[in-house]
Amino acid sequence: MKNSICVFDSGVGGLTVLRELKKRLPQKNFIYLGDTARVPWGNRGREVIKKFSLELTRFLTKRQIDYLVVACHTASTVALTEIKRETSVPVVGVMEPELKQNWEHDSRKVGLIGTAATVRLGNWRNVKAVACPLLVPLVEEGWINRLVTSMVLQEYLTPLKKEKVEKLVLACTHYPFLKELISRIMGKEVELINPGELATERLVRLIGQRSNGEGKTEWFFTDPNYRAIKVLLGDVKIKKVDVC
Amino acid sequence: MKNSICVFDSGVGGLTVLRELKKRLPQKNFIYLGDTARVPWGNRGREVIKKFSLELTRFLTKRQIDYLVVACHTASTVALTEIKRETSVPVVGVMEPELKQNWEHDSRKVGLIGTAATVRLGNWRNVKAVACPLLVPLVEEGWINRLVTSMVLQEYLTPLKKEKVEKLVLACTHYPFLKELISRIMGKEVELINPGELATERLVRLIGQRSNGEGKTEWFFTDPNYRAIKVLLGDVKIKKVDVC
Repeated sequence: MKNSICVFDSGVGGLTVLRELKKRLPQKNFIYLGDTARVPWGNRGREVIKKFSLELTRFLTKRQIDYLVVACHTASTVALTEIKRETSVPVVGVMEPELKQNWEHDSRKVGLIGTAATVRLGNWRNVKAVACPLLVPLVEEGWINRLVTSMVLQEYLTPLKKEKVEKLVLACTHYPFLKELISRIMGKEVELINPGELATERLVRLIGQRSNGEGKTEWFFTDPNYRAIKVLLGDVKIKKVDVC
Repeated sequence: MKNSICVFDSGVGGLTVLRELKKRLPQKNFIYLGDTARVPWGNRGREVIKKFSLELTRFLTKRQIDYLVVACHTASTVALTEIKRETSVPVVGVMEPELKQNWEHDSRKVGLIGTAATVRLGNWRNVKAVACPLLVPLVEEGWINRLVTSMVLQEYLTPLKKEKVEKLVLACTHYPFLKELISRIMGKEVELINPGELATERLVRLIGQRSNGEGKTEWFFTDPNYRAIKVLLGDVKIKKVDVC
């Protein structure tokens, strides 16, 4: 599809970012690419995450796209510089260095939850960052409103509550599915930040005025039979791609 | 390493199979290959699991090996025929068709727990098979003796208890880590089957008489920085490999 906005993600979680984008830019065409053959990336090392990110970027830039949105927080934290170097298309990541700086210099106490890689490789200063590896599989199992999920969250969020954080960054595409549960545990006074919304704002500023019409979405996955596609997206028409 | 037994696995869970093998064949050299860049395989589709399995097999058969053990139940269930066709080396899988037939014709009620792919693509007849996608991440998080893990197991095992199974096959390399918990929930009278032990017996029969000496183990991973390597294996000397 010509003139489209590409959203790339390690898997299916980027759906929460795509949702924000479509709300604000309903007239645009979108291409979604999820690396479901190799998801999740959040427990892997730096080199592998960079390699996978660049393979996806190369696949996308061969197509005629206008903008590239890196919806995966792990890729965005670890490989955004390399992705921007790889393509001439404007790139917006969910973890822009500017955002990170804002949080690090915020007058309020900022906490962050994300994958192990996002936490370990993000070089977080002045931000209490906690890895929550079980949340992605819980969401992909569809266990959104379960006691078990609430107990796992209780455990992960305890150090953030002790630290009395006032803002909490949900630095993984899957976490907005758990927003209510997280808010209940952290308390209503803690502001929850969804970087997918911030990336959307950034892209809207870049693109400018919205036009009329209704856009389409094309779905590309490296494994069209990955289990969570049905759980989170329902029945969508999928194109299989090999990126490596 | 010459004259070695290769153990291949989608990730780190094959460690439980390697452990059984080393107990019975301590004089042998082992090569362990874990596809930690693309683990886990259990939520993926048939084609991707076959592709990854064959890529690992090709890498291994380029080396001078004597036997190949497919430690991953997902690969063994979905791709064993293709793996055996790909190499001239004798192959032992944790899910041999013969085993499957035995369970299907057992006079006692047999249950099985495994990944989504093992359950969905295993064509199980007369065996109550239940997918347990959260157990792998729980074990890899090191949450072996947690209340949460016990609650998740309670939920997954309920249909098997209702069915009054008398034998339960632990059809995933990670599950032996949870053996005690599973036994407590299922009841002591239910026999737990670890296919890793059965594959070991099969290999011992193939190899015959044991000789003296103490063998070595070489560790190969597609992502040496995969998080759970440290959690489950501790500090081992790793060689990085690219299989694709």
